[in-house]
Amino acid sequence: MAKINDNFIKLPESYLFSDISKKVNTYKTEHPEAKVIRMGIGDVTLPLTGEVIQSLHAATDEMAQAATFKGYGPEQGYRFLTETIVKEAYLPLGIQLDPEEIFISDGAKSDTGNFGDILSKENRIAVTDPVYPVYIDSNVMGYRAGELGSNGKWSNIVYLPCTPDNNFVPALPQEKIDVVYLCFPNNPTGTTLTRDQLKVWVDYAIKNDVLILFDAAYEAFITEKEVPHSIYEIENAKKVAVEFRSFSKTAGFTGTRCGYTVVPKELLLSCEEGDKKVSLNKLWNRRQCTKFNGTPYIIQKAAEATFSPKGKEEVKALIDYYMSNAKIIRESLENIGMKVFGGVNSPYIWMKTPEGFSSWEMFDKLLKEVNIVTTPGVGFGPSGEGFIRFSALGNREDTLEAMERIKHWNIKK
Amino acid sequence: MAKINDNFIKLPESYLFSDISKKVNTYKTEHPEAKVIRMGIGDVTLPLTGEVIQSLHAATDEMAQAATFKGYGPEQGYRFLTETIVKEAYLPLGIQLDPEEIFISDGAKSDTGNFGDILSKENRIAVTDPVYPVYIDSNVMGYRAGELGSNGKWSNIVYLPCTPDNNFVPALPQEKIDVVYLCFPNNPTGTTLTRDQLKVWVDYAIKNDVLILFDAAYEAFITEKEVPHSIYEIENAKKVAVEFRSFSKTAGFTGTRCGYTVVPKELLLSCEEGDKKVSLNKLWNRRQCTKFNGTPYIIQKAAEATFSPKGKEEVKALIDYYMSNAKIIRESLENIGMKVFGGVNSPYIWMKTPEGFSSWEMFDKLLKEVNIVTTPGVGFGPSGEGFIRFSALGNREDTLEAMERIKHWNIKK
Repeated sequence: MAKINDNFIKLPESYLFSDISKKVNTYKTEHPEAKVIRMGIGDVTLPLTGEVIQSLHAATDEMAQAATFKGYGPEQGYRFLTETIVKEAYLPLGIQLDPEEIFISDGAKSDTGNFGDILSKENRIAVTDPVYPVYIDSNVMGYRAGELGSNGKWSNIVYLPCTPDNNFVPALPQEKIDVVYLCFPNNPTGTTLTRDQLKVWVDYAIKNDVLILFDAAYEAFITEKEVPHSIYEIENAKKVAVEFRSFSKTAGFTGTRCGYTVVPKELLLSCEEGDKKVSLNKLWNRRQCTKFNGTPYIIQKAAEATFSPKGKEEVKALIDYYMSNAKIIRESLENIGMKVFGGVNSPYIWMKTPEGFSSWEMFDKLLKEVNIVTTPGVGFGPSGEGFIRFSALGNREDTLEAMERIKHWNIKK
Repeated sequence: MAKINDNFIKLPESYLFSDISKKVNTYKTEHPEAKVIRMGIGDVTLPLTGEVIQSLHAATDEMAQAATFKGYGPEQGYRFLTETIVKEAYLPLGIQLDPEEIFISDGAKSDTGNFGDILSKENRIAVTDPVYPVYIDSNVMGYRAGELGSNGKWSNIVYLPCTPDNNFVPALPQEKIDVVYLCFPNNPTGTTLTRDQLKVWVDYAIKNDVLILFDAAYEAFITEKEVPHSIYEIENAKKVAVEFRSFSKTAGFTGTRCGYTVVPKELLLSCEEGDKKVSLNKLWNRRQCTKFNGTPYIIQKAAEATFSPKGKEEVKALIDYYMSNAKIIRESLENIGMKVFGGVNSPYIWMKTPEGFSSWEMFDKLLKEVNIVTTPGVGFGPSGEGFIRFSALGNREDTLEAMERIKHWNIKK
């Protein structure tokens, strides 16, 4: 009798953003006149840039002629893109990579979600809390989470709180762990680690044979010099860390789909049985060759275009635009007496709810009283309770209007 | 200490098509003057059609304007595409589907590879033999294969031979199984099941609570009336079967990446523990929402274009072109006394090697003596030994030249 993977029924029925979407749709049905401004899900709003559009058209024309048509590409991605990433994304940071250490994909969500395929079910996983839900949910599916407790925590997952109490710098775990997900600049808090703070984690990982899964999807938003853009800026990190990156937020590719994962060749892990050490790079390559057939050629050409001199300027302009939104949101919320975090090296602003309001209560209040959609912090984990996430990835007009509404509104009542 | 999933090191080091590629590259380096014709990997050669190209350009232009820009789309795919598939791909076959039963993806390889995520590790898997390697390799990674024996078979996998002895119609398994992969028209043999033959499997699956994973990636190549295009043409198949489809071979999307999977809502499986029955549709939806972020908008628009009246004509012309190649290959091989199968409802021709030649020996001989690349049948499983696969997806000139070379060549020596 064919059976399912029971871990799937342990997962709460719905996904954070579906819940939000339902609440918003209900509200809009009941109040069709309301102009609801979405500052919830971290989706971008500016169109693709000129270089990217031009490249998509040119690559499409290539696909129209037999002589230049592209069929199956390498599962790992085209060399023109991996080499460009080595040269344009890493060399300027002083990081040397081999193009074979880079795997192009359809996005960081797929890669962070699928990476567990090559890891032992017995590994003990740690996450910072609050956290991007995919890290946890994919480990539930992958037999590593145990049971969901009434405190909102899975029994086998180690949670590392990131709150104002520790300046959002996760403490090293007390218990033994095997794998830790670190996302900096952080989704959802928008906070970062300095090079020195990240070095503590790399040193810890080397000493304790811990694998770091480093999500750098928001690195392009960094404005402060002491914040590393890549974990490989830290000495010896290649021995312990995989890095996930994405064109989604950087270049507006949320609907265009391209990301990449760096798996250094010197990163070795132990087998479940025996003393053999195995190259994670080879394993991920095998996984991708078996379960993935490459990112569309035209999309890879579009991603390449973001690294041309003009492409880089355009991307910078996108980022600057969103970071100006972030500044507007930060300052507006501070002006009405709110305590806010993030928004300096990331497009997310993490707001403490006024005393007495839970995340969802604040979400409802913002939706109903000023028609602004945010994301309730508790949706990202227990330590997110009492916070709300604002995204700065909207357009300027909406951002200004939302902040104008807030200015004249007594948020604390 | 972080550990790997040891199943990965059980897998033979390399992948069939990499091995072939290495042999071909070595030969070409040693014989730079040789004009090698590739009839191995099943990649298409004709460019994307006019409607598809036009649609890609138009969708790209939409991405260039804020008003029409698309960010994150539904993980399940856009409604415009799922509804079109319901109407254009299934209704003409007399099959009623709900658009929510269709999940758009980046291709059938990803879907067939990832589908195991939602299934119990304890399920016993059956495959036809020879077989598309992804079915087996992904189950090795997913803890369901056991150990690889010296006979080329995994200890926990049930192999159902498809050979001339049974007219390539797999017998129902003797032992208890839980899940069976059926791919018809078949890759690699090019053979098919009639409606009556497929009904035997559906009835068996219903009676024995077996899940059928039906790969219909080659349905567009069917020319004979008694061969079903979809497993849902068989009564009650929705209760037991998932169907995978792809635009890769149908519309030349091997480098453009789009496919879809049908998971009927009435398909229920048991839990590992307890008596509860669970909807597989919900589970696959959860899997995709967690580990996938949708297919690029512009690619989904391109896929939609293959269903317009003109798009359908263009696709038919592509298929006709390749099927004319198939006829040329079949007849040429028969003319030199070879026994061949397939090539009537599929772009693959499955040739019995002359007495005394193994698959790899024949592969080498074809490469070295007439500079034709094929795929050795044994690469698809033990029952593929003694066969060679020719692909008809090349261009006409190469196909004709290859067959001309074969005409004057004594293959049996």
